[in-house]
Amino acid sequence: MIIGELINSSRKAIKPLVENYDGEALLQIARAEVEAGADFIDLNCGTFVKDEPERLVWLTKLISEELSAPICLDSPNPAALKAALPLIQTPVVINSISAESKRYQEILSLALEYGAKLIALCLDGKAVPQTVDDRYAVGAKLIEDLVHAGVASDNIYVDPLVEPVSVVQTGGQVLLETVRRLHQAYPEVHFICGLSNISFGLPNRKLINRYFLAQTIGAGMDSFILDPTDRALMGCYLASRMLTGQDKFCTQYLKANRRGLFND
Amino acid sequence: MIIGELINSSRKAIKPLVENYDGEALLQIARAEVEAGADFIDLNCGTFVKDEPERLVWLTKLISEELSAPICLDSPNPAALKAALPLIQTPVVINSISAESKRYQEILSLALEYGAKLIALCLDGKAVPQTVDDRYAVGAKLIEDLVHAGVASDNIYVDPLVEPVSVVQTGGQVLLETVRRLHQAYPEVHFICGLSNISFGLPNRKLINRYFLAQTIGAGMDSFILDPTDRALMGCYLASRMLTGQDKFCTQYLKANRRGLFND
Repeated sequence: MIIGELINSSRKAIKPLVENYDGEALLQIARAEVEAGADFIDLNCGTFVKDEPERLVWLTKLISEELSAPICLDSPNPAALKAALPLIQTPVVINSISAESKRYQEILSLALEYGAKLIALCLDGKAVPQTVDDRYAVGAKLIEDLVHAGVASDNIYVDPLVEPVSVVQTGGQVLLETVRRLHQAYPEVHFICGLSNISFGLPNRKLINRYFLAQTIGAGMDSFILDPTDRALMGCYLASRMLTGQDKFCTQYLKANRRGLFND
Repeated sequence: MIIGELINSSRKAIKPLVENYDGEALLQIARAEVEAGADFIDLNCGTFVKDEPERLVWLTKLISEELSAPICLDSPNPAALKAALPLIQTPVVINSISAESKRYQEILSLALEYGAKLIALCLDGKAVPQTVDDRYAVGAKLIEDLVHAGVASDNIYVDPLVEPVSVVQTGGQVLLETVRRLHQAYPEVHFICGLSNISFGLPNRKLINRYFLAQTIGAGMDSFILDPTDRALMGCYLASRMLTGQDKFCTQYLKANRRGLFND
C-alpha cells in the first residue's frame, strides 16, 4: 500500500494552498499522486493548530467529492478525525495511534466505528525504544491490544519508527530486525513507514531512501508513506517487490518499464 | 569483502588479453579494481579448458608480482589451484567448493594447507535446493563439515546461490531468508554472492542488481563478487552498509561522497 504524502501543510508548497483554500491546485496534486500509483491520499493540516478540524474537513470534502481516491486522515486530533470521517465513502486510513497517547481510546473507537485502517506507532510514551527487543515488545503489545479491542489484523499498519542513521547508528538495523520479527509473529499485520527520516543530515538523501526502501521490503514491510510522483522511488518499490517474489511473472515491473518508469 | 570480478576469460573484453598474454592491459584492469575498492582480484581462465592451469599460473604471477592485491583463484580445477597457490604471498580466496563435488576433498586440503578463504556453494549434487529449509540444510551441513575439517569459521564464505527472479519467482526471497537464518545460526561465517544472475532476462539489470545488493546486506550478506569500477554499485554497497549500522559516524559514506562517488 502506498500513501501519497504530498498534501501536508508542513510542506512549503502546500501551506499557502490550504491557507487560501486553493482547491484546484490541491486537486491537481492529489490527481498526480493517484496517477503515479498512490492507493491513499494523505491529508495533513497539522500546522493550522487552531482551525485544523475545519481545514481537514474542507480538504476531505474536496478530495472525496472530486476524486474517488481513498483518504488517509493524518491527524492526532480526535475532534478533527470525528468531523472528517463521516464525509468519506471510500476505505480510510487513520494516521496514527500510539500506545502512549491520551487519545488512544478515542482514536480506537473512531477506527472501530468507521472500519478504518489504523497506523500504529511503536511508541509507549517514553523515548523511542532503542533495542530490537524493546521495540518489538512495544509493537507486539500494541498489535495484541488492538486485535483484542476488535480491530482486524488486516487493518493494522505498524510503524516501527524510522530514526536517522546519522544520529542513531543502529537506527536502520533495529528497524529491519523489528519488522522481521513482528512480521514473523504476526503475518497478517501490515508494516508501514515514512522513509525520509532515515537519511536526515546526510547528502544524497533520495538515493539513501531508495536503498532503505529496498531493505525494508526485504525485511517484510509492505506499505509506505512517500511521494509517489518520485519516479525513481516508485521504480525502487516495484523492483523490490519483484525481488521478494511479490510480482508474478514480473508483470508489474515489466509494465512499469514499458511506461518508461526506469528511464530516468 | 569485495572481490573484483573483471578478470574472467568468459568476458568478451578479457578473453583475447589472456589468450595473447597481454599483461599490461590486464594489470591496468586489476589496478582499476583495486583503486575502486576491491579487496581481492578474481582470476578466472575457465574458458581455456586444456591449458587453464598454465594460464592461471601466468595470471597469478602477473598480478601478485606487480600488485600487492590479494587474489581470488576462481577455478574448480584442483590441478590449477595447486599450481597457482604457492605463488601467492598475500591472503587468498579459493572460489569455490561445494558439497557435491568429486573434488571436495582435494580443494579442502589445499584450502587448509594454504590457510585460504573458501567460497562454499549451497549445492549438494542435485539441483539448487528450492525451499528455504532445503537451502538452509545444505548450507548448514557444508559449514559444519568445513569447520569439523579444520577450516576457521572466519575463512568460510557461503554462497547461497542467486537464481533469476524472471525464472524462479521466489529466487530472491529464498536467498534472503536463507542468509538470514544461516547468519543467525553461524554468526562468524561470511556470506557472499555474485549478484547479476538475479536480473537475468529483465530490463534495467544494473538497477535491479543494486536494489538486490541493498536487500542482501539487509539480510546479513557481507561479501560480493562484482565489478568494483561500477560506481553506482559501489555507492549502493557503501550506503547499504551505513544503513545497517556498519559505518561508524557514516565516515565511509561521507568520504565516498566527497570523492564524488554518488554524483552520477
